[in-house]
Amino acid sequence: MSKLTHFNQSGEAHMVDVGEKQETLRVAVTEGRIFMLPETLALIQRGDHKKGDVLGIARVAGIMAAKKTADLVPLCHPLALTHVNIDLTAEPENSAVHCVATVKTRGQTGVEMEALCATQVALLTIYDMCKAVDRGMSIDGVQLLEKAGGKSGHWTRDTA
Amino acid sequence: MSKLTHFNQSGEAHMVDVGEKQETLRVAVTEGRIFMLPETLALIQRGDHKKGDVLGIARVAGIMAAKKTADLVPLCHPLALTHVNIDLTAEPENSAVHCVATVKTRGQTGVEMEALCATQVALLTIYDMCKAVDRGMSIDGVQLLEKAGGKSGHWTRDTA
Amino acid sequence: MSKLTHFNQSGEAHMVDVGEKQETLRVAVTEGRIFMLPETLALIQRGDHKKGDVLGIARVAGIMAAKKTADLVPLCHPLALTHVNIDLTAEPENSAVHCVATVKTRGQTGVEMEALCATQVALLTIYDMCKAVDRGMSIDGVQLLEKAGGKSGHWTRDTA
Amino acid sequence: MSKLTHFNQSGEAHMVDVGEKQETLRVAVTEGRIFMLPETLALIQRGDHKKGDVLGIARVAGIMAAKKTADLVPLCHPLALTHVNIDLTAEPENSAVHCVATVKTRGQTGVEMEALCATQVALLTIYDMCKAVDRGMSIDGVQLLEKAGGKSGHWTRDTA
Amino acid sequence: MSKLTHFNQSGEAHMVDVGEKQETLRVAVTEGRIFMLPETLALIQRGDHKKGDVLGIARVAGIMAAKKTADLVPLCHPLALTHVNIDLTAEPENSAVHCVATVKTRGQTGVEMEALCATQVALLTIYDMCKAVDRGMSIDGVQLLEKAGGKSGHWTRDTA
Amino acid sequence: MSKLTHFNQSGEAHMVDVGEKQETLRVAVTEGRIFMLPETLALIQRGDHKKGDVLGIARVAGIMAAKKTADLVPLCHPLALTHVNIDLTAEPENSAVHCVATVKTRGQTGVEMEALCATQVALLTIYDMCKAVDRGMSIDGVQLLEKAGGKSGHWTRDTA
Repeated sequence: MSKLTHFNQSGEAHMVDVGEKQETLRVAVTEGRIFMLPETLALIQRGDHKKGDVLGIARVAGIMAAKKTADLVPLCHPLALTHVNIDLTAEPENSAVHCVATVKTRGQTGVEMEALCATQVALLTIYDMCKAVDRGMSIDGVQLLEKAGGKSGHWTRDTA
Repeated sequence: MSKLTHFNQSGEAHMVDVGEKQETLRVAVTEGRIFMLPETLALIQRGDHKKGDVLGIARVAGIMAAKKTADLVPLCHPLALTHVNIDLTAEPENSAVHCVATVKTRGQTGVEMEALCATQVALLTIYDMCKAVDRGMSIDGVQLLEKAGGKSGHWTRDTA
Repeated sequence: MSKLTHFNQSGEAHMVDVGEKQETLRVAVTEGRIFMLPETLALIQRGDHKKGDVLGIARVAGIMAAKKTADLVPLCHPLALTHVNIDLTAEPENSAVHCVATVKTRGQTGVEMEALCATQVALLTIYDMCKAVDRGMSIDGVQLLEKAGGKSGHWTRDTA
Repeated sequence: MSKLTHFNQSGEAHMVDVGEKQETLRVAVTEGRIFMLPETLALIQRGDHKKGDVLGIARVAGIMAAKKTADLVPLCHPLALTHVNIDLTAEPENSAVHCVATVKTRGQTGVEMEALCATQVALLTIYDMCKAVDRGMSIDGVQLLEKAGGKSGHWTRDTA
Repeated sequence: MSKLTHFNQSGEAHMVDVGEKQETLRVAVTEGRIFMLPETLALIQRGDHKKGDVLGIARVAGIMAAKKTADLVPLCHPLALTHVNIDLTAEPENSAVHCVATVKTRGQTGVEMEALCATQVALLTIYDMCKAVDRGMSIDGVQLLEKAGGKSGHWTRDTA
Repeated sequence: MSKLTHFNQSGEAHMVDVGEKQETLRVAVTEGRIFMLPETLALIQRGDHKKGDVLGIARVAGIMAAKKTADLVPLCHPLALTHVNIDLTAEPENSAVHCVATVKTRGQTGVEMEALCATQVALLTIYDMCKAVDRGMSIDGVQLLEKAGGKSGHWTRDTA
C-alpha cells in the first residue's frame, strides 16, 4: 500500500508539491446529514425568510466555509473556486436534513476538501440555530460522493 | 415547543442578545468518528513524528478551528476560550479514529459550537492526509456529549 | 479642538490604551441605504427563500462582518459582541434598501465601528447579488444614529 | 428583465459557476466620500507621518480590505488581485475626503466588489480615527465609476 | 526542570487551561531589528507620507498582526488587547531599523506572543517594501524585553 | 539607486501592478534560528509525538502561516502556493533550533515573503511552547537564502 503523501522523505508534514500537476477542471460532490427530533425538523420546515430561514443561513455558511478550507486544514492548498452549490433537503422520513455540496475549480489539486468543509459547516450551522430546542442532534455520513478531474480520474462512491 | 431563538420577532436572523446572561464557567465535550479502511488506520497507527504524525496534525487543526468558530458559524458569538483539548484515539475494532474535544471558557454563552467545530476539523484533517489512499472515508456521529455552565445547567447525552 | 487620539505623542498611529476605561454596556445604532433602479428593487422584493432571498443573505453577511471589524479597521480594538441585529427594509418611495444595524457589547470601548461595518457589508452584499442587472447602484448615508454607554454618554444624531 | 444570477434554478443562493468564462484582464474603478466637519478635515490635512497620517493608514486599510472581499461578501469568488491603488483626496470645498480605488486582476470574474470593498473600508478607517472629535460623519456615494474586461465589456458611469 | 505546559499528561498538545488564573493587567515589551544596506536605510529615512512612508505602513502592519496572534500561533489563547504601540527607529549606526512593541490587556494570560508577533510582522513588512532594492536584509534579535502582570510577576531582560 | 516600488508616483503606498509580469515557477528558500538555554533545547529534543512534539507543531504553524502572508503584509499580493516545506533542526552546538522554509508557486510574483513568514511563525510557535521555562529566547537571522524565477533571475545569499 502506498504511503501518505502529506509527509516528506523524513516523515515530516509538508504541503505536497503540486507544481507539476496539470491544471484541469476539478469537481467534487459530497454529502452529509444532521439527525434531529421530529419536532425540530418541523420547526425548520415551517421556517421561511419571514419566519426564520434556517436552511438559507446554513447554505450561506457552507458556501463561505468552502472558501476558508485552506485556512482550516493545515496541509490543504489554497484554491480559487469557480463554483459552490449547497443543496439542503428536509427528510421527514429520516428526521434529518440532507446536505449535498458541489464545488468546482480549474486547478492543480482537487476540491473534495472544500466540498466536505462546506458540508460540515452547513450542518454545524443548523446545529447552532436549533440547539436551544434540541441538544442531541448528530451529524453523520459526511463523505465524498463523486470526484472528477486530475490524474486520478472519475471516482464515484457507488462504483468504488 | 419553543421557537428558534436565532430569529427576532419578525423572523429575521440575528445574533441573540446575551448581554444579560451571567458570566459563568462553561464546558462542552463533543465527539465524532472517521471510519476508514483497516489499511488506512494501520498507516496512521504506524506514524509517529518521524514517520508522519497524522493525529498530531489533526489535533493542532482542531484546536485552531475552535478559535475560528465564530468566523464560520454566522450567528455564533465570539468567545475568548480558556481551554481546548482534543483526544484522538485509533479504534482498530471500529476501523475508525475517535475524537473527543473539550472546550472551556468563562463567558455568557456556551462553547458547544466551538467543541463541535474542533471535532469536525480534526476529523476533516485526517481525511485530507489520508485521502490519497482512501477516498471512501466517512465522518460520523459528531455530537455533544456533555455541557455545563449557564442557565440550562448540566446536560449529558446519556441521561438526556 | 482636541487632537486625534489614534496617534501617540510623536504623532505615530497606535491602538489607544483603553485599559483604564470602565466596562459598561455599549450600544450603537447605524444606518445606510443602497439606491438602485426601480426594477432592481422589484426583483429583490419578489424574492423570498424559494426565489432568491437577497435581503436574508445580506443580513447574514452584515452580522458576520460585525465580528470581523477589528480585522479590517487597523486601530480598532477587538471586542466580544453580545448582540447584532440588522434590519433591511425595501423603500419603493426611494428606490432603495434601508439598513439599520444595532450592535451591543459589554466592554471598554464603543461598538459604532462594528455597527458601521455591518451596515456597509450588508449593503455591499446587496450590490454583489444585483450587480449583473444594475451596475449603477450607489451606497449612501452610512452613518451613526445613536450611541450609548461609556464616558461620552448617550449621543443621538437628531439632537447632536 | 433578467433574473438574479446568484440564485440557482430553485431560487437558492449559490456561487455562480464561472468555470467557462474566459480569463481576461479585469479592471474596476470605484469612488466614495466621507463628509465631516470642516475642523475635522483641517485636522486630517495638518496630519503627516509625524503628526498623525490618517489618510496613509486609511489607504493601507483599503488595500488590505480588497484582499478580504471574498471573506466578507458571501457569494463573491476568491480572486488573486494583481494591483490595488487607493487615492484619497481632501476636498475642503465639500468638507469631505474623496476616495478612488482601482483594482486589477487577470481572471474569470470582475473586480468591482474588491474595489467597492476597498473604498468602504478606507472611508470606515477615516471614521474610526476621527470619531472622537466628530461622531456625525457620513459615508456617501460609494459606487462604481468604470469597469473593463470580461464579456460585459467596458462600462463607465458617465455613459451608462 | 519543569516540563512543557503546552502538552497534557499524555504528551499531547492542548491549549492550556487558564480558567483558574486571575484576570490582571498584563504588559509585554519586545524588540527586534532588521539589518540592511546603508543605501536602503537612507531610502527609508528620506521617505515620508508624501514620498513613501515605509515605517508608517510597517507600524500599521505590526498593530494588526498583534490582533491575529491567536490565529497564527496554534496553542495561543485568544485575547482582547487593550493597547498596542509600535516604535520604529532608524539606526544609521547599525544600518538597521529597531522595532519596540508594547502590548497590554486585562486577562488571564500574558501578551508576550502578541508583542513578538507585532514585532516580527512590522519588520517583515519593511522587508517587503524594500526587497526590490535589497534582498539580503536580515531580521535579528526578536526577543522579550519586559513582562508584567500574572503569577510570574515582573520580568526584565536586563535582570534576568 | 532605484526608488521603492511599493509607492506610486505621488509617493503613496499601493499594491504594485504585476499584471504584465510573466507567470513562471517561483521558488524561495529562507532560514532563521531561535536561540535558547541548553536545557530548553534538551526538552524539545526529548519530545516526540507522545511526549510533546514541539517541532511538529511549529512545522504545521509555519506551513499555515505561509498561506496567510498576504493577510499580514499589507502590500503583498495574494498567491496560490503549490508547495511549502519546513525543516526544523535542533543544533545543540548553537543551543538553537534552525528553520529552513521552502515555498513554491507558479505566478507573477515571488514567494520570498511567504517563506520568511513561515520561518518567523514556526520560530514564534517554538517560543510560545517553551516560554514557560525560558523567557529569554531570541529569534535571529531570519533571511532569504535563495530565490528563483521571475525577471530578477536566480539569487543566492552566498554569491550575492
